[in-house]
Amino acid sequence: MSKNPDAFTRLINALKILPNVGPKSAQRMAYQLLQHNRDGAQELSEALQHALKQVHHCERCNTFCEGTLCDICADSSRDPRRLMIVHMPADVSGMEAANCHDGLYFVLMGQVNPVQGMDLSHIALDKLVARLQNSEVEEIIIATNFTAEGDATAYVLAELFKNLPYKVSRLARGIPLGGELEYVDAGTLAQAVYERRMLKE
Amino acid sequence: MSKNPDAFTRLINALKILPNVGPKSAQRMAYQLLQHNRDGAQELSEALQHALKQVHHCERCNTFCEGTLCDICADSSRDPRRLMIVHMPADVSGMEAANCHDGLYFVLMGQVNPVQGMDLSHIALDKLVARLQNSEVEEIIIATNFTAEGDATAYVLAELFKNLPYKVSRLARGIPLGGELEYVDAGTLAQAVYERRMLKE
Ligand SMILES: [Zn+2]
Ligand SMILES: [Zn+2]
Repeated sequence: MSKNPDAFTRLINALKILPNVGPKSAQRMAYQLLQHNRDGAQELSEALQHALKQVHHCERCNTFCEGTLCDICADSSRDPRRLMIVHMPADVSGMEAANCHDGLYFVLMGQVNPVQGMDLSHIALDKLVARLQNSEVEEIIIATNFTAEGDATAYVLAELFKNLPYKVSRLARGIPLGGELEYVDAGTLAQAVYERRMLKE
Repeated sequence: MSKNPDAFTRLINALKILPNVGPKSAQRMAYQLLQHNRDGAQELSEALQHALKQVHHCERCNTFCEGTLCDICADSSRDPRRLMIVHMPADVSGMEAANCHDGLYFVLMGQVNPVQGMDLSHIALDKLVARLQNSEVEEIIIATNFTAEGDATAYVLAELFKNLPYKVSRLARGIPLGGELEYVDAGTLAQAVYERRMLKE
């Protein structure tokens, strides 16, 4: 049936690895790139290479970063006593846009999946524990999503901190149920930080 | 606000050139690639390079192709008397899957936009005229979309063929109004070919 040339088919297959991109979208994207935006295709290819080479994890907070420390960790005006734990870099961006947290972050770069047996290998727990050693952190704000994965991750974190000397809170449930942080507006995000529920004083 | 490293931001911007990918999706894609699928990112980068280098246009039908002629144009069992004109390669794939056209194709690689002044520079009209010179074509089947752009393109084509010695038809309007060919099932596509309306005998 389809008589697409091999290089075109390979590109379609490569595009299908993108989240929420099915066969039809991938075919449309490949056509769009090759027919109407070859400069864009070239730039995307190079941006991928550049990012693969340059982007690694911040030594302190685990977010994406090009140097040793990210801008936020390197900013001495941030309050080192409050550490907010989030799922991914987009959550840091959203929180910064809401302008309601002047502390630091830790980015788990993953969530616990309660359906798949609470596997902890997808979240950077070891790095988090190391981050807390000899730190000035007094309060930990768990800012995971209000989804099954986010709740499971919050549970794992709360257990981890149970016998450690931190105040521990979680974002107020002002965020709509089932909502993911990156789709919530700045005002709602700020509200949820101000009204965070204390889990442990 | 957002403290994304430059290489990450560059990748997000590069991903935004993809059709239907906004800032949020692009951010999510970049995160997914760098955190969970670096092999996929590498493959996507290489597939883009390979496609940019290898894929050009079939000399006869103008579709994407790696050699001089595409598989369909090179297939001597196809009937050279019937030429179907479509918008893009995905439409050829869909038509082949419907298994209702044993002739050849011509791929315009674009559509006329009636809102933006019927600019003809986006469709390969010159190449189509050259294709028809000294050809065995007797009937032309216009298989453009049933959208404003597809209708405008069909109009331009019908005008072009008005004084030329071809039978000219357009797909039957069995395809739902506003529908685009690549989203139509094979049965409906076949129906639309069998019931094509003659525009000129
Ligand atoms: Zn950092
Ligand atoms: Zn061809």
